[in-house]
Amino acid sequence: MNYHVLTLFPEMILEGMNTSIIGRAMAKGLLTLEAVNIRDYSVTGNGRIDDYPYGGGAGMVMQAEPVYRAYCDLTGKIGYAPRVIYLTPQGKVFDQKMAQDLAGERDLIFLCGHYEGIDERVLEEIATDFISIGDYVLTGGELPAMVVMDAVSRMIPGVLSNQESGQYESFQDGLLEYPQYSRPEEWRGKKVPPVLLSGHHGNVDRWRRDQSLLRTLRVRPELLSDAELDKKDIKYLEALLWGEAEETPDENTKEFLIKLLAMKKKT
Amino acid sequence: MNYHVLTLFPEMILEGMNTSIIGRAMAKGLLTLEAVNIRDYSVTGNGRIDDYPYGGGAGMVMQAEPVYRAYCDLTGKIGYAPRVIYLTPQGKVFDQKMAQDLAGERDLIFLCGHYEGIDERVLEEIATDFISIGDYVLTGGELPAMVVMDAVSRMIPGVLSNQESGQYESFQDGLLEYPQYSRPEEWRGKKVPPVLLSGHHGNVDRWRRDQSLLRTLRVRPELLSDAELDKKDIKYLEALLWGEAEETPDENTKEFLIKLLAMKKKT
Repeated sequence: MNYHVLTLFPEMILEGMNTSIIGRAMAKGLLTLEAVNIRDYSVTGNGRIDDYPYGGGAGMVMQAEPVYRAYCDLTGKIGYAPRVIYLTPQGKVFDQKMAQDLAGERDLIFLCGHYEGIDERVLEEIATDFISIGDYVLTGGELPAMVVMDAVSRMIPGVLSNQESGQYESFQDGLLEYPQYSRPEEWRGKKVPPVLLSGHHGNVDRWRRDQSLLRTLRVRPELLSDAELDKKDIKYLEALLWGEAEETPDENTKEFLIKLLAMKKKT
Repeated sequence: MNYHVLTLFPEMILEGMNTSIIGRAMAKGLLTLEAVNIRDYSVTGNGRIDDYPYGGGAGMVMQAEPVYRAYCDLTGKIGYAPRVIYLTPQGKVFDQKMAQDLAGERDLIFLCGHYEGIDERVLEEIATDFISIGDYVLTGGELPAMVVMDAVSRMIPGVLSNQESGQYESFQDGLLEYPQYSRPEEWRGKKVPPVLLSGHHGNVDRWRRDQSLLRTLRVRPELLSDAELDKKDIKYLEALLWGEAEETPDENTKEFLIKLLAMKKKT
């Protein structure tokens, strides 16, 4: 995978992606990363690439021509026109499925806006994907581009070691991860749950699955509606509902559970 | 606002936050940022801070004690115990409202996990907020911490100039932003929408609002259910439904619009 980033802050991209798993994958040649400074394509020649918005309003808008020139120069070098991802709160919300889809490409171009955004006309001309990483406003597209590159890179064969590649599986089945514990067995009076020390794999798996269900119910109950639940999952959720598990849910959660269980039993 | 980040990659944090608006706010003294290397608190003294998970499974877990020592040392220096944000897919999904809430604090500690996460017991002991920036898996908590710091910083008085501070308003009213245009009036055969050149502020505002509605309907229709819509907004959505606006929605969108308009008229 070759990442190409059109940005006003190339150092931020290069330095930020150089650590940990991604840096290692670059060193191994599994990924390449280049950052192109849009300012180098300033039309006025003085590095200026923004101007006032037509129709008035606060902030400046990045002009179409510098972005377009940077893009043409880049695709000329690449030799074809890869997908161009514009990072914007006005995009589709990024998720693990999109990461998997993007990981199948040979090249990806990321276009990072700043200020009030980029002139709409060049976006119509070159952008193929509009992606938002969440419902919040950031200073520019650089952090979102790095987030997308990080998530996509993890899906590329060879980037994660076998040891690491289990990491996203739990997320992919639509539930939150169970809690993790490491040495020592007792830390400042807090003990590791005994089942994890039992050596009984079936019980460990069941406990972890139940913890995933419990956590998802606590923090992101809406995820449970889409998750695939088997008979044992249903049984645990029923035990929770009837106060027979490790905690008793509040009235709202109980109501939610009743509806969820009715729905899951139908299908 | 003083940000304190507990991390295995302090350089990544320091370099990544040094650009643009956030860098300028730090130079002005409105923000401070320090990054503490958890590895410096290794119990074995050789920088090792992870171990195998109890109960088996792929990946390594960050141990409780080094994190706890780094935390105690830090809060000792700060002089009180600020909120501690643990960045995790198992958290509440970050949004603009949470950014506003966090911006009211004097200090914030961010705890960045790596590998399979951090021993649950130290999280129980020190973490006050569990935040996810979205439904995707990343290599570590560093990029999410930077995303949250960026979004929070923008809400702190003085960080954005008056010129810039309008930027997030549109997002805050629950709709996506309208398109922006800057000079020239005609770019490679594409013209700026004439209304933006008219000088008629009322018409400009109406056009922009309609474009926000149209875009939200296209990309994130679910946002419209919660958005506050006035009579003119309803009128535009009706025009869209009846094929009297700039584009004709497909059948699914029409069905959605009929339900939405019925709901909005009731309230």
